[in-house]
Amino acid sequence: MHFVLTAHDQNSSARAGVLTTPHGQIKTPVFMPVGTAGAVKALHIKELREDIGAQIVLGNTYHLYLRPGTEIIGKAGGLHKFNGWDRPILTDSGGYQIYSLADIRKFTEDGVIFQSHIDGSKHIFTPEKAIDIQRILGSDIMMAFDECTPYPCDRNYAKKSMERTHRWLNRCIQHQSGTTCAYGYHQSLFPIVQGSTFKDLRIHSAEFISNIGADGNAIGGLSVGEPAEMMYEMTDAVCKVLPVDRPRYLMGVGTPANILECIALGIDMFDCVIPTRNGRNGMLFTRNGIINIKNEKWKEDFSPLEEDGEVFVDREYSRAYLRHLFISKEILSAMISTIHNLGFYMWLMNEARKRIEEGNFFEWKNVMVKKLMQRL
Amino acid sequence: MHFVLTAHDQNSSARAGVLTTPHGQIKTPVFMPVGTAGAVKALHIKELREDIGAQIVLGNTYHLYLRPGTEIIGKAGGLHKFNGWDRPILTDSGGYQIYSLADIRKFTEDGVIFQSHIDGSKHIFTPEKAIDIQRILGSDIMMAFDECTPYPCDRNYAKKSMERTHRWLNRCIQHQSGTTCAYGYHQSLFPIVQGSTFKDLRIHSAEFISNIGADGNAIGGLSVGEPAEMMYEMTDAVCKVLPVDRPRYLMGVGTPANILECIALGIDMFDCVIPTRNGRNGMLFTRNGIINIKNEKWKEDFSPLEEDGEVFVDREYSRAYLRHLFISKEILSAMISTIHNLGFYMWLMNEARKRIEEGNFFEWKNVMVKKLMQRL
Repeated sequence: MHFVLTAHDQNSSARAGVLTTPHGQIKTPVFMPVGTAGAVKALHIKELREDIGAQIVLGNTYHLYLRPGTEIIGKAGGLHKFNGWDRPILTDSGGYQIYSLADIRKFTEDGVIFQSHIDGSKHIFTPEKAIDIQRILGSDIMMAFDECTPYPCDRNYAKKSMERTHRWLNRCIQHQSGTTCAYGYHQSLFPIVQGSTFKDLRIHSAEFISNIGADGNAIGGLSVGEPAEMMYEMTDAVCKVLPVDRPRYLMGVGTPANILECIALGIDMFDCVIPTRNGRNGMLFTRNGIINIKNEKWKEDFSPLEEDGEVFVDREYSRAYLRHLFISKEILSAMISTIHNLGFYMWLMNEARKRIEEGNFFEWKNVMVKKLMQRL
Repeated sequence: MHFVLTAHDQNSSARAGVLTTPHGQIKTPVFMPVGTAGAVKALHIKELREDIGAQIVLGNTYHLYLRPGTEIIGKAGGLHKFNGWDRPILTDSGGYQIYSLADIRKFTEDGVIFQSHIDGSKHIFTPEKAIDIQRILGSDIMMAFDECTPYPCDRNYAKKSMERTHRWLNRCIQHQSGTTCAYGYHQSLFPIVQGSTFKDLRIHSAEFISNIGADGNAIGGLSVGEPAEMMYEMTDAVCKVLPVDRPRYLMGVGTPANILECIALGIDMFDCVIPTRNGRNGMLFTRNGIINIKNEKWKEDFSPLEEDGEVFVDREYSRAYLRHLFISKEILSAMISTIHNLGFYMWLMNEARKRIEEGNFFEWKNVMVKKLMQRL
């Protein structure tokens, strides 16, 4: 894997680049749709590729390990073969999902013993196991096994947790170097900066992680309930430490405004369930602001979802029709809003990249963050 | 509307034809996917048109009247404009849905007073009202307001109900002739043969309906629980009476085998929720038989859904992957199985038509009905 920076914004730390992976190139900044169980919810693989033009998709190790299980995905020849998505895949390590979904039974230096949220069955995840699973999944980018601290978090706990995350990182790296990808290509491993909302811990963690010299670096434990300003402050502090020449991935972020702000701070990669999950609940992101399509006001609005939108749904369906589908609980409502929102996120990233190349990203971003978050 | 017969099978009453409607031509025999609330569940309008190649879609008057309501559909300019489907639409009269879904409060010569299954609100449907609503929906083919008797049904009740259905038909015709389509084209009205499972009543009803000289004729009140052989017997008796030169529509039928058998008896048009509803429950119809994709046996079957299938899902997704999506309750499971099953039904109708044109439909049908209904 290699990363080439191709442009820098004039008045911010925003940058554009090209990341080359075993399954193709990714133009950054990039948004990665979340394909939890090996599918982006309510979306065909074909739509993801052709209509939305996603460059890379995220898969959840925790979910895929529990269902269908590594045995089946291994027999299929990896996640790419299993679901037919032939572009890059990034998998998380399962850490975050264990903390947010599973019932944790025991937390040790070795790893975490937890119960499945599906059937209550008992499992253990260790740094080594997280790598083993991701080896079988065959993701282009594997994530280190970490602990995502909650917000707010006691400073002492945040420090201890961060230190353990660093020790787990060393075990991940060691295990990575002792194993190979079953499918013959190189899988990169991204370490994760932790440290909760304590700037000194964040800087310390970023320094520790920078010394690893990984193909790319991630920032975890943000967007977990802290104020947006605090998230930006932490992201800024970390970006100033992380190596300039490697991609920076801010995990689990965020709204269109969050993303633009963090691109300005030097982030290259994002993932978030907001466009898909909020879309399924009737929230549409558009170039002019946010639409809650279930609102009475759209009842007789027969204009297209978004006249100058990116995807076919924007022109082929009206707001009144989509509202009707939501009120009637039709599956098609989730399909339309998912494709619309992801199409919008892709458009936003393309525009951001274009402005970075032109050098005027910062000014554009300041206009857009206000516009995009207003309620229509 | 006009109907031209283009071919007849040598050893059965099967026939091929072309039905011309205000929204285009339909090659018969034809299967009409059910778009209850103005959408075929789990399917984009675009997929219905391009991937499946549906020629005509059915809309449910009862559902559309209750939600979003005729006011909104009227303001949109009719159902075609509301959902973007520009090919022919047939709407039922609401009768069947009232009997099967609503809480009937009162049944009179004038019509039916019922409570909405959605919010319990009170409504009345009369023959005139059913026409008024379908005028606003703007369907190419409207259905007469009838009573669908249950199975089994007392002979006396079946006779009385049939006679009322006939009187209601006269009111529908009178009201049709006194009103016009809001959108400037001609809407045909199909009367419905009733008479439960009593052959003499069916023949009497078919004679009554034949005398109307409608653009096409329908058979209702079958496939409501009676044995298949009884359904075939009634259909056969009715087809022998109905005018040869008008399309014959068998309402709510059926499985692939039911459809082939009834094509052999002279039926031209079908609708049924089986491919869509059963699809959403994991039942896939294929050229070699029926797959219950949730079964353990498909767990590690990485072969395509149906190698020589009609639609992209047949080649792009494996059985193991689709099974995983069903087990994980992913929306994509419903999307894939719907498109697969409707694609299969369209293929089946095209094949049937081809055999009729070749004159060897009957022999092919006898082989296929056995093959298609076996469990894989």
